[in-house]
Amino acid sequence: MEPSSGSRVGGPGVAPVAAVLPAGGSGERLGGATPKQFCAVQGRPLVSYAVRAMERISWISNIIVVVSPENIETMKSIIEKYGHERVTIVEGGITRHRSIFNGLKVFAENEFSNHLLQKPEVVIIHDAVRPFVEEEIISKVVTAAKEHGAAGAIRPLVSTVIATDADGCLDHSLERARYRASEMPQAFLFDVIYEAYQQCTDYDLDYGTECLHLALKYCKTNAKLVEGTVDLWKVTYRRDLYAAESIIKDSLSQQVCVITDVKEAVAQVGFLLCESLKSQIAVETITLSLRKNDHLQHIFTGQCYNLVYVNDKKCAIQEMQQLVDMVEKSDIPLLYPVVLILVCLDISENISFSIGVEELTRIKKFSREVKKKNFLVYGLLIQ
Amino acid sequence: MEPSSGSRVGGPGVAPVAAVLPAGGSGERLGGATPKQFCAVQGRPLVSYAVRAMERISWISNIIVVVSPENIETMKSIIEKYGHERVTIVEGGITRHRSIFNGLKVFAENEFSNHLLQKPEVVIIHDAVRPFVEEEIISKVVTAAKEHGAAGAIRPLVSTVIATDADGCLDHSLERARYRASEMPQAFLFDVIYEAYQQCTDYDLDYGTECLHLALKYCKTNAKLVEGTVDLWKVTYRRDLYAAESIIKDSLSQQVCVITDVKEAVAQVGFLLCESLKSQIAVETITLSLRKNDHLQHIFTGQCYNLVYVNDKKCAIQEMQQLVDMVEKSDIPLLYPVVLILVCLDISENISFSIGVEELTRIKKFSREVKKKNFLVYGLLIQ
Repeated sequence: MEPSSGSRVGGPGVAPVAAVLPAGGSGERLGGATPKQFCAVQGRPLVSYAVRAMERISWISNIIVVVSPENIETMKSIIEKYGHERVTIVEGGITRHRSIFNGLKVFAENEFSNHLLQKPEVVIIHDAVRPFVEEEIISKVVTAAKEHGAAGAIRPLVSTVIATDADGCLDHSLERARYRASEMPQAFLFDVIYEAYQQCTDYDLDYGTECLHLALKYCKTNAKLVEGTVDLWKVTYRRDLYAAESIIKDSLSQQVCVITDVKEAVAQVGFLLCESLKSQIAVETITLSLRKNDHLQHIFTGQCYNLVYVNDKKCAIQEMQQLVDMVEKSDIPLLYPVVLILVCLDISENISFSIGVEELTRIKKFSREVKKKNFLVYGLLIQ
Repeated sequence: MEPSSGSRVGGPGVAPVAAVLPAGGSGERLGGATPKQFCAVQGRPLVSYAVRAMERISWISNIIVVVSPENIETMKSIIEKYGHERVTIVEGGITRHRSIFNGLKVFAENEFSNHLLQKPEVVIIHDAVRPFVEEEIISKVVTAAKEHGAAGAIRPLVSTVIATDADGCLDHSLERARYRASEMPQAFLFDVIYEAYQQCTDYDLDYGTECLHLALKYCKTNAKLVEGTVDLWKVTYRRDLYAAESIIKDSLSQQVCVITDVKEAVAQVGFLLCESLKSQIAVETITLSLRKNDHLQHIFTGQCYNLVYVNDKKCAIQEMQQLVDMVEKSDIPLLYPVVLILVCLDISENISFSIGVEELTRIKKFSREVKKKNFLVYGLLIQ
């Protein structure tokens, strides 16, 4: 697949960029049978977040997910379930480096010819277990890699690092300010990292973990280090899964968009709702002009996934169906479930209770249908 | 206060041991106005967990909490609210090392004479923002400190550590296996660490963070390094607060103790309940002999804070009140809220609905009263 034009702000131009996500780890530090990249966070496997984070960036042409042989089927079903695109699954090796090397080979070696992909100028390497990575840092790392041959995100050290002697005692401690934790994403000129992997020893492939180190050792490329954001951390322990879950919940509960009909009585209720919500949460109000695509894009890229649609119930479900269809047809990648609360106002006073229930039943049915598309619909009928 | 005999398993003998908890940090990495040690996790400030973790160990005679001047009142109210004992509050300095040094001075300097405390043989240094520390690791570190002069918990590195050059590029990366993250708790012979602090330079006091380093540099003491458990990590970022909250919730939901009356019909229900719970959770069943103190101690130290009391409602509240009183009078420190579910069986069939409601009202009242004592009571009436 050809990469798109790279016209988005912060995109590093038109050169082909691909991403390799090693997802072959066994997650032994986490405890439990499921490797951490397949653990569900808010109902979705962690690896799907990482894939989505790459997929939403239009200038990344191919996403290679490297998994161990026993997880290929699992990965296939995740791709299908969440509708991931531009993804190629590659069988991993027994170590992290061997897995990444396998991922790179799909761009270069004929033995993988049944899915030989266009060789990218730059390749991003990112962990499947780092779900929160923004376009900005990916873009910075890619740009730096083009200039320096290699680049990687770093973070300040949280703990002092110490060296032990042969007796298990302190030998010396490192001055914390002079060192950094090497994080992901990293990016490389494809030729640099591929050359490094081709040159490196079996010892490197079996015991090493750091791609920047290989580029330095075998290609004399001193990677540019880019200060990363706090959200780049790697899910390593069970507590990190909890943290990931809470971060998602938290970020999703920060904003709400209230959509109202143009009808005056309805718009009035919407306006009152906004006012009372404003003390708790960031609120945006719009009328049905929402159905303009760029407006939707604006809402979702602003991390707002909570929509309250206040209406007088005559055509609420049709309207929402159109909205769902529009999102589906558009290029807007939904990073998280969209929560859609249908507030149906029954303004006329002569409708019996049973009709209300009927309406709610229809909402329930609609809710079931769109849930697969990552829309969570709730209905509220006010008589 | 004299330390107790140290007869508990794993206790490092009769020598006086004290603990210093630096809690003067501003928590700027967390974001938000409240320093992280005062942030609530499950309703209780983080520092209270760390204090409780020390306080529950009978052989720790004094716990020194070092806080910045503006937080002294806050800390006092926390101590009062949660009934912490053996705690002395000390005013901190402008850096971590200066705060720890101030904490140590209460054992040695006359200028602090209005609360000069008995000089301990060993002093533990632990962070106020590491809420989960078990007696076992503290005991190991203290024992190692007695032998080696200094000791500290370590953990494997999660990320590769790299050194940067002057241009912000990779200079070299450290071989991960040869290095460790230095964590807390640490312990020192008091004379070693106090000497080190007296010797060290203003530069050390202002820019250093690592006590093990000072003991090595100024007292030629190579600390013994003790492999720590995964729960020793430090709450640094907001995500760590989320993780701490989830870990507490999780650990509290792993076990339940079902208490039944000796009456056959009641015991039968209790037994059935146990059987059906066993597939989900670890269950212990006991009859009312619960009221023996050692049995209670056994339950709470086994991290079981969930009690279901099945009874025939005649004297349920009195029984539970006795239990609450007994826990209060005993030495059992409640690390977490005790969840107490009163299941009142109405076996006789001729009692009207209103009596049931009355009973629930009484439970509600009881619940409000004991909530302050960290007991959360729920009532369930089965007719």
